[in-house]
Amino acid sequence: MAENPLHRLMNPGSIATVGAGNNILKMGTMHALSIINDGYRGKIFPVHPHQNTVLGLDAYRSIADIPEVPDLAFIVVPSVEVIKIIEEFGKKGTKSAVIITAGFGEMNEDGRLMQDRLNELSGQYGIRFLGPNCMGIINSQISLNTTVMPYTSAPGSLGFASQSGTYVTQTIPYLERNGIRFSKAISVGNSANIDIIDALEYLGEDEQTRAVSLYIEGIRDVERFIDVARAITPHKPVLAQYVGGSSAGARSSLSHTGSMAAPDHLYDGLFRQAGIIRVESIEDLYRNGNMLANQPCLNGKRIGILTNSGGPGSAIANALERGGLDVPEFSKEVQDQVRPLVPPHAPCGNPVDMTFSMDIENLSNKIPEIILKSGEVDGIVIHGVMGTGWLKAVFPHFNSVMKDVTLEGLLAGFSDKSGSAADYIPVYNKPVSISSFIDREDNYTASYHDHGVPVFDSPEKAAGGMIMMMRHREIRERKPWTRPASVPAPAGAVRILEQCSAKGQANLDEHGSKLFLKEWGIPVTEEIVAATEEEAATAAEKAGYPLVMKASAGDILHKTGRGLIHLDLKSKDEAVASFRKIQQAAGRSVPVIAYRMVSGEREFVAGLVRAPGFVPSVMFGLGGVFTEALNDAVFRPAPISEDDATEMLFDIRARALLGAFRGMPAVHVEALAKVLHRLSLIPIAHPEVAEIDLNPIIIDGSEPVAVDALVVLK
Amino acid sequence: MAENPLHRLMNPGSIATVGAGNNILKMGTMHALSIINDGYRGKIFPVHPHQNTVLGLDAYRSIADIPEVPDLAFIVVPSVEVIKIIEEFGKKGTKSAVIITAGFGEMNEDGRLMQDRLNELSGQYGIRFLGPNCMGIINSQISLNTTVMPYTSAPGSLGFASQSGTYVTQTIPYLERNGIRFSKAISVGNSANIDIIDALEYLGEDEQTRAVSLYIEGIRDVERFIDVARAITPHKPVLAQYVGGSSAGARSSLSHTGSMAAPDHLYDGLFRQAGIIRVESIEDLYRNGNMLANQPCLNGKRIGILTNSGGPGSAIANALERGGLDVPEFSKEVQDQVRPLVPPHAPCGNPVDMTFSMDIENLSNKIPEIILKSGEVDGIVIHGVMGTGWLKAVFPHFNSVMKDVTLEGLLAGFSDKSGSAADYIPVYNKPVSISSFIDREDNYTASYHDHGVPVFDSPEKAAGGMIMMMRHREIRERKPWTRPASVPAPAGAVRILEQCSAKGQANLDEHGSKLFLKEWGIPVTEEIVAATEEEAATAAEKAGYPLVMKASAGDILHKTGRGLIHLDLKSKDEAVASFRKIQQAAGRSVPVIAYRMVSGEREFVAGLVRAPGFVPSVMFGLGGVFTEALNDAVFRPAPISEDDATEMLFDIRARALLGAFRGMPAVHVEALAKVLHRLSLIPIAHPEVAEIDLNPIIIDGSEPVAVDALVVLK
Repeated sequence: MAENPLHRLMNPGSIATVGAGNNILKMGTMHALSIINDGYRGKIFPVHPHQNTVLGLDAYRSIADIPEVPDLAFIVVPSVEVIKIIEEFGKKGTKSAVIITAGFGEMNEDGRLMQDRLNELSGQYGIRFLGPNCMGIINSQISLNTTVMPYTSAPGSLGFASQSGTYVTQTIPYLERNGIRFSKAISVGNSANIDIIDALEYLGEDEQTRAVSLYIEGIRDVERFIDVARAITPHKPVLAQYVGGSSAGARSSLSHTGSMAAPDHLYDGLFRQAGIIRVESIEDLYRNGNMLANQPCLNGKRIGILTNSGGPGSAIANALERGGLDVPEFSKEVQDQVRPLVPPHAPCGNPVDMTFSMDIENLSNKIPEIILKSGEVDGIVIHGVMGTGWLKAVFPHFNSVMKDVTLEGLLAGFSDKSGSAADYIPVYNKPVSISSFIDREDNYTASYHDHGVPVFDSPEKAAGGMIMMMRHREIRERKPWTRPASVPAPAGAVRILEQCSAKGQANLDEHGSKLFLKEWGIPVTEEIVAATEEEAATAAEKAGYPLVMKASAGDILHKTGRGLIHLDLKSKDEAVASFRKIQQAAGRSVPVIAYRMVSGEREFVAGLVRAPGFVPSVMFGLGGVFTEALNDAVFRPAPISEDDATEMLFDIRARALLGAFRGMPAVHVEALAKVLHRLSLIPIAHPEVAEIDLNPIIIDGSEPVAVDALVVLK
Repeated sequence: MAENPLHRLMNPGSIATVGAGNNILKMGTMHALSIINDGYRGKIFPVHPHQNTVLGLDAYRSIADIPEVPDLAFIVVPSVEVIKIIEEFGKKGTKSAVIITAGFGEMNEDGRLMQDRLNELSGQYGIRFLGPNCMGIINSQISLNTTVMPYTSAPGSLGFASQSGTYVTQTIPYLERNGIRFSKAISVGNSANIDIIDALEYLGEDEQTRAVSLYIEGIRDVERFIDVARAITPHKPVLAQYVGGSSAGARSSLSHTGSMAAPDHLYDGLFRQAGIIRVESIEDLYRNGNMLANQPCLNGKRIGILTNSGGPGSAIANALERGGLDVPEFSKEVQDQVRPLVPPHAPCGNPVDMTFSMDIENLSNKIPEIILKSGEVDGIVIHGVMGTGWLKAVFPHFNSVMKDVTLEGLLAGFSDKSGSAADYIPVYNKPVSISSFIDREDNYTASYHDHGVPVFDSPEKAAGGMIMMMRHREIRERKPWTRPASVPAPAGAVRILEQCSAKGQANLDEHGSKLFLKEWGIPVTEEIVAATEEEAATAAEKAGYPLVMKASAGDILHKTGRGLIHLDLKSKDEAVASFRKIQQAAGRSVPVIAYRMVSGEREFVAGLVRAPGFVPSVMFGLGGVFTEALNDAVFRPAPISEDDATEMLFDIRARALLGAFRGMPAVHVEALAKVLHRLSLIPIAHPEVAEIDLNPIIIDGSEPVAVDALVVLK
């Protein structure tokens, strides 16, 4: 496997800038100011056609004039000049570039052609580039920031890759305020050469990065995305936000980075398959990413709650339990240890509610240790620790009485040396999530931030952080994965498709569809075709009763409610009558299929769907005539293993139907999973298959049988 | 109707404090400091046993010594002293009190008895009180703040009532930072005398309050809550968070304010019925409440988006559309007006993405006016307006080059006088929602705050605010409501219940249940009871085929899968055989009911459920044997009108089944709604009915018919 181009690009020993000058209101200059000022120690070579110095550094008239081969080319020039400059850097021997300039593939056909030319040059000179239409990178490890905003936070643990430049630039003040610190951040822009999958792979390999957050408008190489993500997600959490799933989101994304978007439900499936936790806001991407990046793993579901107020305690308890975690009552022993530290009659059972107590050390330190040490919880959520922030807030009132007390004096007297719950995280190796309504003005909030402990600005969000820890734990516990091998198309299946296309049909008739699926090992009803009344009678006797008869023709896609299906026929006479009725209903002579009726109350649906710009996806859901109304379906990008398929089965809301249910035996889950697995292999072997619909799959006893099927060709 | 006690309590001309002294670390003193310092202009009478002055004010040795009758008693003393003090204020003639002290009903039986005694005194002296166990009130109109934190924001429009004191106290710094301003805030504590419903009613009547947010751990008088809320919600938005729905949340709430909680799904129904928008976090309660309190109504679904960055634009578009709003492409005319104001090739279609533009006036002012004026949208979401906050962030870089430029100089040069989109809200009467990653440090953020325009700290939240506006619009458009009148129990229904209890049965058998429901006008199968084979044969012939036969006995609750139901019988012989099999399966002689089988593929479930501490609720959902697995059910507190019931029907996920569906005609919605309405009247007329279960209700053609029914008695 080729080395990831970002290893080199993110760690340059020297940088050449083109487009930076001495006018600080120009974008190129603003980018260069960050490179120069934010602590980067490598060499910087400004290239400028007229100036002798740029921002105090010696400037060079041309790229050729630079006295050595710069490791990274940083380019902010009008779009028409970019090709020439990349070529010059290629000739110079530079192997990495960041192209900030917009106006390429996101804009129009000319832009796309320029982008193609850049890729040609990349191949020719071995120069790999980020962008165009991006904001560059942050590598906190070497204090390199190429964005237009100052970034001076200490090195963090959250790796971030984004198809929006704003999220590695404009949000920096927000991140600083909230104690969220990047290990590395990468704005991929149009992803013409290095894309978000490269970024994910790089952040997965990067040791400084302990969790990865991705802002996504569209993934091009879905298969590689899954392969890369599945290698990372068992040991390092990955979160993603995807905004291209609605028509408005898709339209906006297309004009923004030229991304092709696919419907939300397919991305839901992609993320589930990849082991990526999907979030719905940039806030969750940052905050929960930061939580996951800075906390030890959650190794169980039992969470303790400590608060200085009943409301937030109730809100946290409620949110945790609704999110699938437990809030067990503490043992008498633990409660007895806590009780002397809280006001009389304060609840100690979990939540521990200290009420509005001034005894900060108990809340920040002593009680957290008792709870963490007890072995009765796997993590803890604390609300309301506050010190100097609270003093600052109430100081005007204090001062109204004690005129000689200054704020400085008050704060100096307060400064708490006893530490905080953050100290116990390494000792007990359990996650701690904090909520506080007071920001970094408060010494505790600032200290938690600085120790890498997330401080959420409301109780429910602190609970949400812990729920994310649980979700990552579930992903860590998945079985090891390898991409399912493709299998050759069965000869019989190939023949059926050939016959169909020879007839010029757009899809297989029901009988043909079932024969095709049977070749793929998918259980279907055993059918007999009848073209005449006599054949219908013979077929009926052979199949047995109760019997189903249906019209089967390639051009009849919907049979329900049109008199083309007759169920529960109990005799030869009924079968013959049914045959006649079907001919009549069809208004012409149609073949009829007969099979012994499958009985079972549980009906599912499975299939294969395609969307433009996305790989084929397998679908599974609750089936029968109400499929669309129930809308309980899940998707996965094909191919999927049988293990993947099993996970998928249990993703439907009505998953209880898979177990023993009201006197019915448990579904043979392996058999049903195998149906999905086999379905997922079909589009690889038969690219001409556009869609497959198995509806319903009836559970006969425990066994799935597809009783209706449709295979649509491209 | 008695005047709401909060009108008087919230607007005192004078306040007596008991428990405040000169030690600023005592709670009583801290509360008093807020009353004294935050701008209140009424008289303040501290009562103190030893001190001559308290916080610089003349103090009185006893309540009796106060030279006039104080309007409000403010009490922060140990719990054992509260009763005596309330009695003294009663004698003095004071009519309102706030009791901060905890240790009452939330604690133990002794506390509950003290609370009862306080209520006796309230009745005796006509003194109404808030608390105990609360944080008091904020009335920004008269600058009265009784909480322990300074509150000095300008008067706002958001009314807030809370069963947690923290949310009107500890969060004040957070509220100030986020530009969220109360009209009035009320901490109701244990609600021993004045409760959260009084608070809701008061805030509904209060003209300064334009939206109401409620933090709820449990509602005692559900009926009054609905009556009060429904009078308010058509014209004033009400939001609520409820945290008592999980077992951990319920346990925590009980120890916090002594609240009895009920399951989440019943509160979902309560809020829907009341016209209250439920939110899941304190952040949404504040931010979305503030949005609703400060914006004109949203009168359509078309939203314009203006941004300085593609990512946030896509995120907003996606969130709006997923939330049910539209992001229509602008007309050519509008795009042509916008285009000269944005960089070349910037998207103008909606979103308008200005990219990282320095032309703040276009983003803050000119383009918003073009869009609002166009008539093509009903509201607008703007992301990324920033001025001084951005300058402050980048100043260190500027300063590295231009050493003589000071931050003050830079900011002075910048100050933008052109105004902002807030100016157009009154002109075009359309809501504007803002997102920015820069806080009040920024002149625009601060100015939006000060104009009452919400600034959300991420794009999805700004979209969320607009979605809340839409939800309020839907509630405004509901039909006028009056509480359904109770109806007398039909004589036949009373007789059936009497017979049942005479027999000592815990529930009606299926046949009795259906007869009972029929008396209430609920459509059920017409049945014939058969006790012998001969009767079975006669019944079968009379009912007609296909026929259903079932065991019907009060002690047989579950018949499925036990051989006690036979469907689709086609002849007298089959009926007789079925009768025999049922006797055999029951293992004794049981009566059998026979009815002509109802055919229809759509099955629903309806019923009546009870939970401790809550009124009976009507249930409706997707039915049949899979009811529990599908878990598609909604609830409403009884009684409900037919209009309420119609709303309820369309709340299920599978609502598409109510319309014409795959060849089936539309359900007769009025008939189905009537079933729910009638069901909801039953518990009022028959308090002894504990539960009712109609599962399934089959749709026969268009008409609902309950084919199985169970009425359980208390």
